[in-house]
Amino acid sequence: MLSQLIEKAKNGRRRAIAQLITLVENDQEAARTIVAALYSETGTAHIVGITGPPGSGKSTLVNEIAKEYRKREQLVGIVAVDPSSPFTGGALLGDRVRMRDLSGDRGIFIRSMASRGSLGGLARSTGNVVKVLDAAGFQVILIETVGAGQAEVEIANAALTTLVIEAPGMGDDIQTIKAGILEIADLLVVNKMDRPGSDRTVKALQTMLHMGTVRRDESHHGRAMTATGPNLAVSDLKSTWHVPLLETVAIEGLGVSPVVDAIQEHRNHLIKSGDWLEREKMRSRREVGQLLQDRFMSKLQLTVPLDERETIIEAVARRQLDPYSAVERLFEQAHASEEAP
Amino acid sequence: MLSQLIEKAKNGRRRAIAQLITLVENDQEAARTIVAALYSETGTAHIVGITGPPGSGKSTLVNEIAKEYRKREQLVGIVAVDPSSPFTGGALLGDRVRMRDLSGDRGIFIRSMASRGSLGGLARSTGNVVKVLDAAGFQVILIETVGAGQAEVEIANAALTTLVIEAPGMGDDIQTIKAGILEIADLLVVNKMDRPGSDRTVKALQTMLHMGTVRRDESHHGRAMTATGPNLAVSDLKSTWHVPLLETVAIEGLGVSPVVDAIQEHRNHLIKSGDWLEREKMRSRREVGQLLQDRFMSKLQLTVPLDERETIIEAVARRQLDPYSAVERLFEQAHASEEAP
Repeated sequence: MLSQLIEKAKNGRRRAIAQLITLVENDQEAARTIVAALYSETGTAHIVGITGPPGSGKSTLVNEIAKEYRKREQLVGIVAVDPSSPFTGGALLGDRVRMRDLSGDRGIFIRSMASRGSLGGLARSTGNVVKVLDAAGFQVILIETVGAGQAEVEIANAALTTLVIEAPGMGDDIQTIKAGILEIADLLVVNKMDRPGSDRTVKALQTMLHMGTVRRDESHHGRAMTATGPNLAVSDLKSTWHVPLLETVAIEGLGVSPVVDAIQEHRNHLIKSGDWLEREKMRSRREVGQLLQDRFMSKLQLTVPLDERETIIEAVARRQLDPYSAVERLFEQAHASEEAP
Repeated sequence: MLSQLIEKAKNGRRRAIAQLITLVENDQEAARTIVAALYSETGTAHIVGITGPPGSGKSTLVNEIAKEYRKREQLVGIVAVDPSSPFTGGALLGDRVRMRDLSGDRGIFIRSMASRGSLGGLARSTGNVVKVLDAAGFQVILIETVGAGQAEVEIANAALTTLVIEAPGMGDDIQTIKAGILEIADLLVVNKMDRPGSDRTVKALQTMLHMGTVRRDESHHGRAMTATGPNLAVSDLKSTWHVPLLETVAIEGLGVSPVVDAIQEHRNHLIKSGDWLEREKMRSRREVGQLLQDRFMSKLQLTVPLDERETIIEAVARRQLDPYSAVERLFEQAHASEEAP
């Protein structure tokens, strides 16, 4: 059953792809089987993370980028992730626009995802959905995330190229969010260039670029040794990528083709510089780390009975036991029951 | 040394408190010792999480709330957390205002924290800083987080009362963020009520309140059975708290006293309804879970040599090994080396 479904998905059958995605999202045991079966056929798609604050016209730009890739005869997957609602999930932006605009093109596959609890869980699901699309033959996969915070950074981890969108007139305080999210940008796009104040937004971002606030290379990921202070010459470093600043009016389709060109240039840069492998290693390290933790927690749940765990938690809540001692107790119990026959 | 420092901090000595906080933030081994020593004396402070989008006047309102509590002769700790910058940390909002406004009052202790990597790490640090302040005798601890996303939700976990601030004129798209962040609100405050459009913002939030979108009770945390659909009567449930909507002009100090009254009412509600213990249990469950994972990962790092781990990670990056099989291999190795003498 499952192996047939996997075979069909590999052949690009849409219904099978949709079914596999639902499985990797909802069933951890199935996700394990599916990922193990597909994994060797992944790694060819170019994964692009697209993020930016609400109101920046993200969904519209994602649609236009998808259409541009279609003109270039690439198969495009879109994964739209909304991490903003921790409990109910919540409606995804731009879905109606998207459906009207892109439906009917069988070269595009769209999937919306909402959070159902942990951010780690969402990042893992997103990674697995991307793998299914990758193995199914989609050549470009666009991951769109709503908002501008740590959640986006975690999800952007699945991407090889990260595009950050800004728009004029988002208010001054937005600046404070920018610093964090801009650091993950490989490409910067100012959308809504027809709006008043757009030149000011471009200039502000250019200033940040020149100050070296915005510069992504592998040094963030703890490997390459690069100078990180402001105004330092880093152009002699092989892996240095100069973040381009692009201007669009997505709603009219203006400036979209140069954005796609820049994504492709970044892809080429990653391959030539060797950063591709570095990013894949970083992604793998995080993914394996997360799965290891899941594995350990499920082992603990199997070996230490629920009521014992709850007794310990209640003692911590009542301040009768400190959390570190609680951990030692649980850790020892998991270990002890393991050694029992 | 450390035990002397802990003793001094318990007696409210400011320098000792500051040193302990630095230790729990930077030294995991010290954090363990400090938390174990202090933990039984925590649990008396009321922990208030305060969050909302940039531009809502959060820092100003936090300062005013602190001043109001000071009038009521409470000792106040403020922990300002900025999770928006994953790499550099970044400057914290409102710090200058705060310093000018509150410095000199020895009944207030202020600490700013920025992210240095993982969100989990930041949430854990925040929890530990709160414990130090709690044990040091601060009766109210305000945790201020910048932004409005999953990060805030994780950090708000340390709080017993969560206050969400909104302001007029944040743009229509902000609505989409609201849904998520509002679900964690015990109190809603519309700040900047002197701004145009404030009545509309209040009405929009009232509508959401009536639709039942905003309603916090323990059902979110998987315990109580409550109806969760719109327009359902839930008033017969003991643990139901009707989220109040309050209006302020924080910069002029208007409406702040009713906010503090509402926080105190919520505190009383938590104690009477038994939700206090439920929230403490939820907090403990998450905290112990996080520490367990840390414990397991450090054990793995001790038992599986770095080069072996890196070889496995590179095989995953090169698609020679799928992540789930990598996990099994690492898990078995950690286990095998454990059984060796």
